[in-house]
Amino acid sequence: MKATRRPSTRVRAQTVRDGARATVFEEVVTEEPLQLRAHGPGQPVRDLAVTMRTPGHDFELAVGYLASLGVVHEGADVREVRYCDVEPGEPQLYNVVTVVTSHALPDRLFGRVAPVGASCGTCGSASIDDVIVATAPIGPSAPIAVTLLVDLPERLRGSQRVFELTGGIHAAGRFRRDGTLVVAREDVGRHNALDKVVGASLLQGWPVMADDVLVLSGRVSFEMVQKAALAGFGTIVAVSAPSSLAVQLAHEVGIAVLGFTRDGRTTVYSHPERVAD
Amino acid sequence: MKATRRPSTRVRAQTVRDGARATVFEEVVTEEPLQLRAHGPGQPVRDLAVTMRTPGHDFELAVGYLASLGVVHEGADVREVRYCDVEPGEPQLYNVVTVVTSHALPDRLFGRVAPVGASCGTCGSASIDDVIVATAPIGPSAPIAVTLLVDLPERLRGSQRVFELTGGIHAAGRFRRDGTLVVAREDVGRHNALDKVVGASLLQGWPVMADDVLVLSGRVSFEMVQKAALAGFGTIVAVSAPSSLAVQLAHEVGIAVLGFTRDGRTTVYSHPERVAD
Repeated sequence: MKATRRPSTRVRAQTVRDGARATVFEEVVTEEPLQLRAHGPGQPVRDLAVTMRTPGHDFELAVGYLASLGVVHEGADVREVRYCDVEPGEPQLYNVVTVVTSHALPDRLFGRVAPVGASCGTCGSASIDDVIVATAPIGPSAPIAVTLLVDLPERLRGSQRVFELTGGIHAAGRFRRDGTLVVAREDVGRHNALDKVVGASLLQGWPVMADDVLVLSGRVSFEMVQKAALAGFGTIVAVSAPSSLAVQLAHEVGIAVLGFTRDGRTTVYSHPERVAD
Repeated sequence: MKATRRPSTRVRAQTVRDGARATVFEEVVTEEPLQLRAHGPGQPVRDLAVTMRTPGHDFELAVGYLASLGVVHEGADVREVRYCDVEPGEPQLYNVVTVVTSHALPDRLFGRVAPVGASCGTCGSASIDDVIVATAPIGPSAPIAVTLLVDLPERLRGSQRVFELTGGIHAAGRFRRDGTLVVAREDVGRHNALDKVVGASLLQGWPVMADDVLVLSGRVSFEMVQKAALAGFGTIVAVSAPSSLAVQLAHEVGIAVLGFTRDGRTTVYSHPERVAD
């Protein structure tokens, strides 16, 4: 995929309403990996983290990330922040940021990855290819009626015991194509809620089918689509917005993503053939 | 701190309205660290990850996490899931889960951490002490009028260019005690939005003061309070709910957390002395 520096990305989507489909163009938030690297004087350049972020203010992000590790406290602690050095004529990919600090950085910050070259042979490496886990495409499924799909978030909400108490917890639910709830789980982290649903399915010996529907109480990020793809879901129905990379990955692996599913409406961002009027 | 197995936690809070304070008891979502460990036959037990999660269905979470790494596909891949082995008479802490797989796990899953003992000397280690970065307590500040604080989320929203386009992006903003916006940033990840605000402050040489206010478009997790504490904010104003561990850390480091700040109302979960009627 090509990196973009725009904070939002235009995607083609469909609305399905009263048996009629309309093609719309929607702006979704751009989500892209950024490789953070750092070193102090005389230290080798090392990878610190890959974060999925919205492009823009990348240098601030890198410096703030170091501040949140407690190793940078003021402007004087930062000697330089830069994108990759590129050869003349090579395009800058804006997906790697290196922070040079004015003091040595402790080894504990860095994982087991080897030091990377300061020049640019590996600069293109912070891409979707680094963050994706290989997964087989999801098989075909008979279309599911949109009138059934748009009701699922409300049914998931109805099963949320802790949300009722706290008003602040995510949920994920697995539904069959006829609308039956298989399992719903809540967690302060939306990725945990999904992991619990997948783990429950696996431990109980109920394999996820291509015509099962994953319902999410919040947004759809790249990570959520990846987890859904590994589990085998053909359809994701979410209350809130998907990101650009979520839509792209869903296209590639064969998952229908329905976002902004509220008040009897929805927007289909990928694989509308899984959705029946 | 003591671990709890309840998905929500009762905390004491204050509402401030029309110049009157009332003490209320609120249920907040429980957030606690869980250490995930795994090994295959004949392999040493190794740490896989620490996740901040809501207690409950921990075995499903652990297995689903392994599924999302692409190394577990069906029930037969899991030989056993267990909490720590404890000595007779020792309390189970429910904060470490070990998954034993029926096949060997690839080394790439594991960080540079050394193998851990299968018995329980280190079982108490997945605690707040492992995830916290040492930070100095935030100094005192003159109280800020609640009428000013409750308006800040709306003012942050007014600065959100990408939210207007996409309806799906987080924001963090730094405000002065008089309500002046210093810097606001948006990102698909709320932690990134905060890192950008902190990085901008640092790069521009505007140190964060104890009477500066951090405004968040979403929820308040432990991680967000930790980042705010490291930056030096005395007050956090959020549109949505805080977690149990966020409230606890805020108590300890001296930060006032205001949650559910909407429609002219708010709930003060910690350090109400920073808030004036």
